[in-house]
Amino acid sequence: MDKAAIRTLREKYEDNLFNSVVPFWERYSLDRENGGYYSCLERDGTVFDTDKFAWMQTREIWTFAKLYNRRDAADEARRRQWLELARSGTEFLKKHGRAPSGDLYFSVDRAGLPLVEPYNIFAEYFFAAGLAEFHRASKEQWAREMAESVYRRAMERKPNPKGIWTKQIGKNRPIKAMGSAMMDIWLAGEMEGIIGEAELNGLIDAAENQIFTLHVDRKEKAVFERVLSDGTHLLSCMEGRLLNPGHALETLWFLMLAVAKRGEQRKVEDIADIMLWCAERGWDEKYGGFFYYQDFKGFPTEKLESDMKLWWVHAEALCAFLLAYKLTGRKEHLEWFTRVDEYIFSHFVDPEYGEWYGYLDRRGEPAFTLKGGKWKGFFHTPRALMACIDWLKEMERNCAE
Amino acid sequence: MDKAAIRTLREKYEDNLFNSVVPFWERYSLDRENGGYYSCLERDGTVFDTDKFAWMQTREIWTFAKLYNRRDAADEARRRQWLELARSGTEFLKKHGRAPSGDLYFSVDRAGLPLVEPYNIFAEYFFAAGLAEFHRASKEQWAREMAESVYRRAMERKPNPKGIWTKQIGKNRPIKAMGSAMMDIWLAGEMEGIIGEAELNGLIDAAENQIFTLHVDRKEKAVFERVLSDGTHLLSCMEGRLLNPGHALETLWFLMLAVAKRGEQRKVEDIADIMLWCAERGWDEKYGGFFYYQDFKGFPTEKLESDMKLWWVHAEALCAFLLAYKLTGRKEHLEWFTRVDEYIFSHFVDPEYGEWYGYLDRRGEPAFTLKGGKWKGFFHTPRALMACIDWLKEMERNCAE
Repeated sequence: MDKAAIRTLREKYEDNLFNSVVPFWERYSLDRENGGYYSCLERDGTVFDTDKFAWMQTREIWTFAKLYNRRDAADEARRRQWLELARSGTEFLKKHGRAPSGDLYFSVDRAGLPLVEPYNIFAEYFFAAGLAEFHRASKEQWAREMAESVYRRAMERKPNPKGIWTKQIGKNRPIKAMGSAMMDIWLAGEMEGIIGEAELNGLIDAAENQIFTLHVDRKEKAVFERVLSDGTHLLSCMEGRLLNPGHALETLWFLMLAVAKRGEQRKVEDIADIMLWCAERGWDEKYGGFFYYQDFKGFPTEKLESDMKLWWVHAEALCAFLLAYKLTGRKEHLEWFTRVDEYIFSHFVDPEYGEWYGYLDRRGEPAFTLKGGKWKGFFHTPRALMACIDWLKEMERNCAE
Repeated sequence: MDKAAIRTLREKYEDNLFNSVVPFWERYSLDRENGGYYSCLERDGTVFDTDKFAWMQTREIWTFAKLYNRRDAADEARRRQWLELARSGTEFLKKHGRAPSGDLYFSVDRAGLPLVEPYNIFAEYFFAAGLAEFHRASKEQWAREMAESVYRRAMERKPNPKGIWTKQIGKNRPIKAMGSAMMDIWLAGEMEGIIGEAELNGLIDAAENQIFTLHVDRKEKAVFERVLSDGTHLLSCMEGRLLNPGHALETLWFLMLAVAKRGEQRKVEDIADIMLWCAERGWDEKYGGFFYYQDFKGFPTEKLESDMKLWWVHAEALCAFLLAYKLTGRKEHLEWFTRVDEYIFSHFVDPEYGEWYGYLDRRGEPAFTLKGGKWKGFFHTPRALMACIDWLKEMERNCAE
């Protein structure tokens, strides 16, 4: 891409972020009565479910605090407002979000009455990251302390993440899931300045090791979501054959960013290769877009929604290929980036009401018209746009006229 | 329908049952090495997952025993074989299926190693029914005793069905789900002769009361899956607005059969009316077929697979409308029955490899080509065909030439 093309793209993403995505959540997601956020928002912003889900609350805190910390908003009053919106979520969770154990309820009702037990450890991951970002924004000491203690609790729970709610009998089938390694890499990046560097590097190293030795299969050119703990594949079962192209690409760009920071260009190039396996296998040649789930052998998966096209999959793919192109300059990655960018802006982006649709059917038509739900909040879309804007700015600076 | 039309239909269903559906499971689902059944079967019968799921094992026992007990197979040697196939499942579960508590593991591997804890009480419902049917087939006393003890244990667990694996905080949102009432009515029918009549009638009465006072909303003409325990609707949340046309029709035909047995024709007519609400609301006018899930207010549901067309939904709808037509003679129910029959035979039935597809996309094309999976076994399809054959036979007998 030449400088003009990079600038045009950056301006498109800035426009989408600041004039379409962010305003949607500023306008429709705030619970002005109880604090915190509504996340179930129809196409036009109508709230269709008032429950509050820990993943959605914690991620929205993170995003508003991140937006505040970026300092690239045109309007300073609006930027200061983002800090207050992030505060609203942290206050709500401090008051209502935590069980006696200190862990976050999976969901509470609009007023904060607990509905679902704290069975999901990633709520703590997102909360720790959100509090860390809020601390960097507000400089308030309590947020730093709470970010650290939530992080510590997540690390403590990690060996048995679902605790008493575990239904899998792990001793008989010791499955390792890639999600936990992916989340560790992301969290390590977010906890910088709050947790010591050596500890965070250890977290990244362990996750990197797990991904490269267990999940990445160089012979088959595939990234397996779930493997046995000795690295063998459980090919006789659906759960062992599951592929998730979006998750693989998300994991790979987190990892690429981490190894690039250490200056390990050979690893960057290696990860760029692995991204291509995932993209080639995961792309729907018939209707376009990446599948949500696939079976390694082409059998049915256990997920009925497998052939749907999801916003977050494409947001993560966008990041993966732009980062890979930025760090390797390879033409294939630019082509994949362009393909994903075009798919997103012609299918997910809603020019009329703002934000992105979340769930398209295989053919690319919205299966639901929602902009937010129990699992889609103010997170993947703005995170991808912010990351791409930053990388495009760097590329612009490094580019000859 | 005149006598000739009834006979033609009966012969079509007999042909589908005995020459398409049953042979598929006879040929492909048996684990001849370990006993029990494979349920994950691709279009052509290829086993694509060797794990054994309690719902699928117990239901297949029930179906083979039921087929044996019907005595309408053309081939007596084949019929006797069904008893042995039912025995294979019971022996496997007796050896490997039960946790120390006596409850059924949700799944075990092909050799019987436990994989998922016994968190799902309906496994006991299906096991009790399967054992009762196997007892009626084999006359073996242990099966009767075990059917009774499994039934007792299910009743004991019912107030807290998920036990220690419960994540919902019920005291803050006391949700009543219709599934449990539906299963009670079915189980009561299956336990006849093993559990006392008064107890079974009490079970049906309580379920009937729950369905009519809590789930059936006459003002809105809708059947709600989940309501608060005082009967109010939770309309601010997806979970309170969930509609499931197939589940409603399944529940209604169970109930219709129970009230018809008591000679309560006014209730039969009432239930027939309620069936029409469900059908009219649940039918996809654009592409045909019943939706899997719907939102009462037309908002998105929390189920990504909502607009798919599922085999069991249509199998249950077929039963509902044939039974209603048989018991009321109403033209609308015959029309709905015909519509469902035509949809099934033009979309679900696979004339090439036998059995029915399980999962079609909204447009009616197979989203997966599987004939069996983690949730589709040898149950809804043969159960519906057997019920319809029986009702058609009665209609034929009662019909003037």
